[in-house]
Amino acid sequence: MEKVFNFSAGPAMLPQDVMVKVQAELTDWNNIGTSVMEISHRGKEFLEVVADAEKNLRDLLSIPDNYHVLFCHGGARGQFSAVPMNLLGSGTIADYVDAGYWAQSAIKEAKKYCTPNTVSVLTETDGLKAVLPAKDWKLSKDAEYVHFCPNETIDGIEIRDLPLTDKPIIADMSSTILSRPIDVSQYGLIYAGAQKNIGPAGITLVIVRDDLLGRAKEYLPEILNYSTLVEKESMFNTPPTFAWYLAGEVFKWLLAKGGLEAMKAHNEQKAALLYDYVDASPFYSNGVHPDNRSLMNVPFLLANPELDATFLEQAHERGLHALKGHRAVGGMRASIYNAMPLEGVQTLVDFMKEFEKAHA
Amino acid sequence: MEKVFNFSAGPAMLPQDVMVKVQAELTDWNNIGTSVMEISHRGKEFLEVVADAEKNLRDLLSIPDNYHVLFCHGGARGQFSAVPMNLLGSGTIADYVDAGYWAQSAIKEAKKYCTPNTVSVLTETDGLKAVLPAKDWKLSKDAEYVHFCPNETIDGIEIRDLPLTDKPIIADMSSTILSRPIDVSQYGLIYAGAQKNIGPAGITLVIVRDDLLGRAKEYLPEILNYSTLVEKESMFNTPPTFAWYLAGEVFKWLLAKGGLEAMKAHNEQKAALLYDYVDASPFYSNGVHPDNRSLMNVPFLLANPELDATFLEQAHERGLHALKGHRAVGGMRASIYNAMPLEGVQTLVDFMKEFEKAHA
Repeated sequence: MEKVFNFSAGPAMLPQDVMVKVQAELTDWNNIGTSVMEISHRGKEFLEVVADAEKNLRDLLSIPDNYHVLFCHGGARGQFSAVPMNLLGSGTIADYVDAGYWAQSAIKEAKKYCTPNTVSVLTETDGLKAVLPAKDWKLSKDAEYVHFCPNETIDGIEIRDLPLTDKPIIADMSSTILSRPIDVSQYGLIYAGAQKNIGPAGITLVIVRDDLLGRAKEYLPEILNYSTLVEKESMFNTPPTFAWYLAGEVFKWLLAKGGLEAMKAHNEQKAALLYDYVDASPFYSNGVHPDNRSLMNVPFLLANPELDATFLEQAHERGLHALKGHRAVGGMRASIYNAMPLEGVQTLVDFMKEFEKAHA
Repeated sequence: MEKVFNFSAGPAMLPQDVMVKVQAELTDWNNIGTSVMEISHRGKEFLEVVADAEKNLRDLLSIPDNYHVLFCHGGARGQFSAVPMNLLGSGTIADYVDAGYWAQSAIKEAKKYCTPNTVSVLTETDGLKAVLPAKDWKLSKDAEYVHFCPNETIDGIEIRDLPLTDKPIIADMSSTILSRPIDVSQYGLIYAGAQKNIGPAGITLVIVRDDLLGRAKEYLPEILNYSTLVEKESMFNTPPTFAWYLAGEVFKWLLAKGGLEAMKAHNEQKAALLYDYVDASPFYSNGVHPDNRSLMNVPFLLANPELDATFLEQAHERGLHALKGHRAVGGMRASIYNAMPLEGVQTLVDFMKEFEKAHA
């Protein structure tokens, strides 16, 4: 079979080296004669997996000591509920920066628990979708926290600014975590579903500053209670052990690849290759301002949408999978997370050139 | 390496045939050139996995058409919150049958949402732990539902009766589901964490009767809302796809093995082999009345607990893993779920005989 490059937005491709290792040790992990997914989460073998995963993640992100690292059930949507129920305390207002679908989904859930102040930040610059600078965001003085989603996967829009606030900043980093260095100390809480840059779907990363614990609502389900998860070291109930192990393998792979500075350079190179070609071509287009283009999710349109089906079919034949854009925006979307090699983007661009030549 | 038999209570061993298949197709599933965990949950390939898993589960358990099958995030402990928040409606009382640790854990969580009526059913018969017959359970006439956990994994106690009630019966079947046929129509809702008889940890099965939908509390996190999960076919958010796929493989394996009648015979044979030997030996003991012994989790004590460490060490050398009892009860525990072959129990009994001979 031809080499496959999988541009799925999530669940997304995982590093090939990691998958080969996971396969090799699937039925006999660490010479124990069974799979890592068949052993107790409380046994010493698995606790070593857990300790290594946390240590390596702390190294990668330079996580300060006053932040806890949690591996949770429930996905990022679980955090849409967990964040307000854990952090509002007696407050009733929270700022929610809105740049697209995922921010709006968080707002919808937050309405069960508080009055979210929706801070619309989308605008148009030079006929392109853009994000207002942070100084123009209308934050509320009464908010308990400011929530935002720095990367909107559907529109391929990235917010590069941080909110200008002294309130805790809460970030849904599901689709950008680990793609470049960040300064964790600027955030109160960061969360991310695993299925883009961390591991398989079904485990959720939460990084929470310790002063934000202890203010949970009494009706908060215990599996979403940060204080309980801190106390029980993410083992209040049986955790998704296989996903946790696999995330740990991804962290090792990232360190071996040079860490997040190296990932940043790698991701910028891939994105530039694709955006530069799209910008230079009259046959393809991307409607987002260069200052706000996502490095992870690159949507593009064909000038003639009647060719979409042919494009997708021929791309698939070339081993270029899962390029169909989200139904809300149509066209194509190439998700190019950490695990996507440069070769994959180059193969895509080569195919796009050929397709343009044949159909322009 | 010697053949390993893994008696872990959960995460537990999975069928060896399934693990071999999963390993073989881990990096190239279904000839698509990628892993099943790297593809969209909404693509046609994965939707076939989902449809097959549901169909096969419905066949195995003869699930009536007026029941929905959900695959959820959050584990059984997530359901400890979800059940009262989804089912109480405007009611404030629910019966909770209490035969041990897991029932009590469900009661603790339920106290956030209602006044649970704790129905203590443990007793002693002939000096052995036993369960009162259902006619003696003190249920409340005002309860919205009756919750029970038919198999307590720590004490190895099984409740064979069903509550005598016209209220919906809610069962935490985490450690017995699929071990024998059940009559689903007698239950309002059945839930089970996957990590014993279904698949890897991180996915949770819920089977819910359709008339119980639509009465959720407004502050219920959406990821735990049965109505939403029914409407979105368990894809309100990205599901744990790999665990779902693997559960589907386990369902196929169960059908190939002859279904749940065959499993029942297999499980009864394994349990009898172990209990009969323990009962006949003065060196080992089990403190549960035969009428209430678990077929899945068999705890046993050595007459001389000072030999526990030696027993565990020598057992491990023989490839008999994870036999240490829960810290609350001490001694040993052999969890012998569906995936444990008869050969594993026979090997354990052979070792126990040798150990008895050497140390009695």
